[in-house]
Amino acid sequence: MEKNTKVKLGLIGLGTVGTGVVKVLKDFDNIEITKIAVKNINKKRDIDNLDTSLLTTDPFEIVNDPNIDMVVEVIGGMDPAYDLLKTAIENKKHIVTANKELLAKKGQELFNLANQNNVVILYEAAIAGGIPIIMPIKTTLAGNKINKIEAILNGTTNYILTKMEKEGVSYEEVLKEAQKLGYAETDPTGDVEGFDSAYKIATLATIALNQRVDINKIYREGITKISAKDMQNAKELGYKIKLIALARLTQDNKADVRVHPMLVPVKDCLASINGVTNSVVLEGFPVGRVMFAGPGAGEFPTASSVLGDILAITNSLGSTDILPFMKCNHNKSAEQIDINDTTNKYYLSVTATNTPGVIGTIGEICGRHNISLASVLQKGIDEKNTAEIVVITEECKENDINSAIEEIKNNSTIVKINNLIRVME
Amino acid sequence: MEKNTKVKLGLIGLGTVGTGVVKVLKDFDNIEITKIAVKNINKKRDIDNLDTSLLTTDPFEIVNDPNIDMVVEVIGGMDPAYDLLKTAIENKKHIVTANKELLAKKGQELFNLANQNNVVILYEAAIAGGIPIIMPIKTTLAGNKINKIEAILNGTTNYILTKMEKEGVSYEEVLKEAQKLGYAETDPTGDVEGFDSAYKIATLATIALNQRVDINKIYREGITKISAKDMQNAKELGYKIKLIALARLTQDNKADVRVHPMLVPVKDCLASINGVTNSVVLEGFPVGRVMFAGPGAGEFPTASSVLGDILAITNSLGSTDILPFMKCNHNKSAEQIDINDTTNKYYLSVTATNTPGVIGTIGEICGRHNISLASVLQKGIDEKNTAEIVVITEECKENDINSAIEEIKNNSTIVKINNLIRVME
Repeated sequence: MEKNTKVKLGLIGLGTVGTGVVKVLKDFDNIEITKIAVKNINKKRDIDNLDTSLLTTDPFEIVNDPNIDMVVEVIGGMDPAYDLLKTAIENKKHIVTANKELLAKKGQELFNLANQNNVVILYEAAIAGGIPIIMPIKTTLAGNKINKIEAILNGTTNYILTKMEKEGVSYEEVLKEAQKLGYAETDPTGDVEGFDSAYKIATLATIALNQRVDINKIYREGITKISAKDMQNAKELGYKIKLIALARLTQDNKADVRVHPMLVPVKDCLASINGVTNSVVLEGFPVGRVMFAGPGAGEFPTASSVLGDILAITNSLGSTDILPFMKCNHNKSAEQIDINDTTNKYYLSVTATNTPGVIGTIGEICGRHNISLASVLQKGIDEKNTAEIVVITEECKENDINSAIEEIKNNSTIVKINNLIRVME
Repeated sequence: MEKNTKVKLGLIGLGTVGTGVVKVLKDFDNIEITKIAVKNINKKRDIDNLDTSLLTTDPFEIVNDPNIDMVVEVIGGMDPAYDLLKTAIENKKHIVTANKELLAKKGQELFNLANQNNVVILYEAAIAGGIPIIMPIKTTLAGNKINKIEAILNGTTNYILTKMEKEGVSYEEVLKEAQKLGYAETDPTGDVEGFDSAYKIATLATIALNQRVDINKIYREGITKISAKDMQNAKELGYKIKLIALARLTQDNKADVRVHPMLVPVKDCLASINGVTNSVVLEGFPVGRVMFAGPGAGEFPTASSVLGDILAITNSLGSTDILPFMKCNHNKSAEQIDINDTTNKYYLSVTATNTPGVIGTIGEICGRHNISLASVLQKGIDEKNTAEIVVITEECKENDINSAIEEIKNNSTIVKINNLIRVME
């Protein structure tokens, strides 16, 4: 197309992010929104002078419109987003999307389809909201072999964990409050059970490790079992508890990708990421360790990333070639290891009867399973004459800690296994 | 040029960074180093199988070689780097440079010359070492109006300040140790007086604020006057002291760009940037506040950024157009405000005779100069019957604090003004 004509953009979705996109695009004369697909055409919108003649309830009007150069999809979910984007790509439209679930589940297919049709899919907004992370990996860090990602990718859970930590209250209590304030959804499963983080780390790890990571093979554990006591214990031991999305290459180049809560040493920069903020730490060669942090969601931060992608496509529309950094084709499947084959440090909390030698018993059982203890904390004896015993192990195999726990559980001095949480080194 | 031929690269400089560049380029088959300019051709190099036939002591051989596509300059300083890059650009070679001083002093001229010759100058490594910051601003954040940068851009001074803080020792003592360890140069002026940070913020602010910032109008103050006492006082008041490179747009769109020590609230993410780590915090619309942190110097981190730029040029050599994000032409000069016209919060430490009402006197003088006090700290009385009094002011005009200090200095109860340090909000 001619460089001086306006780029014609179709927007699918006019919720929080879509509204932000319309607002920020007002300042860009060279980009014209020609159609906006909405669910409810009569809903009042928080946009000044919105031209309601642009609205349609049929998103297929957009993906089939021959005049539209670029489709911006901000509805999320699989249906109808998957069909819409497939059709748009087949119709040779460039795509900007914030849809982490779709990318995690259908990324490979869509990226290959885009490649065949000589269009690009950009998705900076799908991972860590306003934080520039995909583009830096594809440009400045392009020459690196990245071997580790540690990230906080879900604002809702980080908000809940931060509140629990600062106020010493239970998960249930904070969740209720977060729901009232609109920080958590009525059905919070997607966030609190780690699905959202898993979608994001699937795509982020694919780009950073340069291998296609399968969402179905990502181990996932949420934050619902974290107690106020765990928070307190972690604090006493010099840690905070965060929901961490983790990806690393093992020495034999296998991918260890997972989402679960972790005790993070207070000195680690991720420990100081509070509230709804997101953060991504990358480790690689030659760069070493770099950190990115910022708003992981919200109308304007997300619109910032969508806008960056729109401009990248707009600016390259006159070029003959699609530059490598605009593509995302990772067809080499990662060999993902099972959580049982990983090694970790662990936080283990048990309730035991107040009998002499119970710590010794735990230590002895762990020892027999090749597990050394790094620290032990015994909490006050309660009215039932039981005590909470907390240990932090040295690095050991997940399989070994599981067998050790089976044995500890069956020991007569142990009343209850309270929690097992992995610990960041 | 054909996309499948090798890109021919000339390297000027084989010090720490140059050595890193040679090492990391070994893995890239499509890029060939055809010449390397060095000072001493016989010096032993820490590079396996270095082809010494590539070495030359005449860097002009490189910039005048018609077979070379791209010049990578990592010698630093003005002379001969300025002449070399000018010649290279006139000979239509793309440039990758880590030379912050050259960019700060001659950036405008060189970028315009590059534009005329249809080549690009990339310089990710010149600012904040391995941290991706220039490319994110030019791509993902391209649609933002950035109105504030707060950054730690010099590893040497941050190392010294961190050591002073952790160990309670004097500036002089830490400097000596840093020099022994090679973290500070024999003549540390460039680092400790803030020149290095000023060069970096000049270019960073130019890109981020989208206006040409004049290095000569950047207010600059180093860390040599920070005492162990200041460090201790800051800690007691809930702050750390950091050398901050600051750039912000005033409400009437003027540029306030400066480098000086600041008390940073411990809760601010910049307070936790320790040792030689660098960090850049950007604030803008629509993104909000984003933070980047990582290694600000060193062989491999710097090589990572140089490599990213080399790959960006290599990947775009087949394209017909130079993409906007590869250019850097900011010919609109920023209207830079004088330090005397800024407003700040201040930390003021004075030594006063132990007479009743001396804090009242300071408060009264400040009040008459439109300055409110936010907190006051009185330190123990010494053998001379004097005491140290420390105040933190509310935000006030630099001019007002200066007149207030003139008056405080002349007050009979005041023995000495110890230090005045600006405070981050």
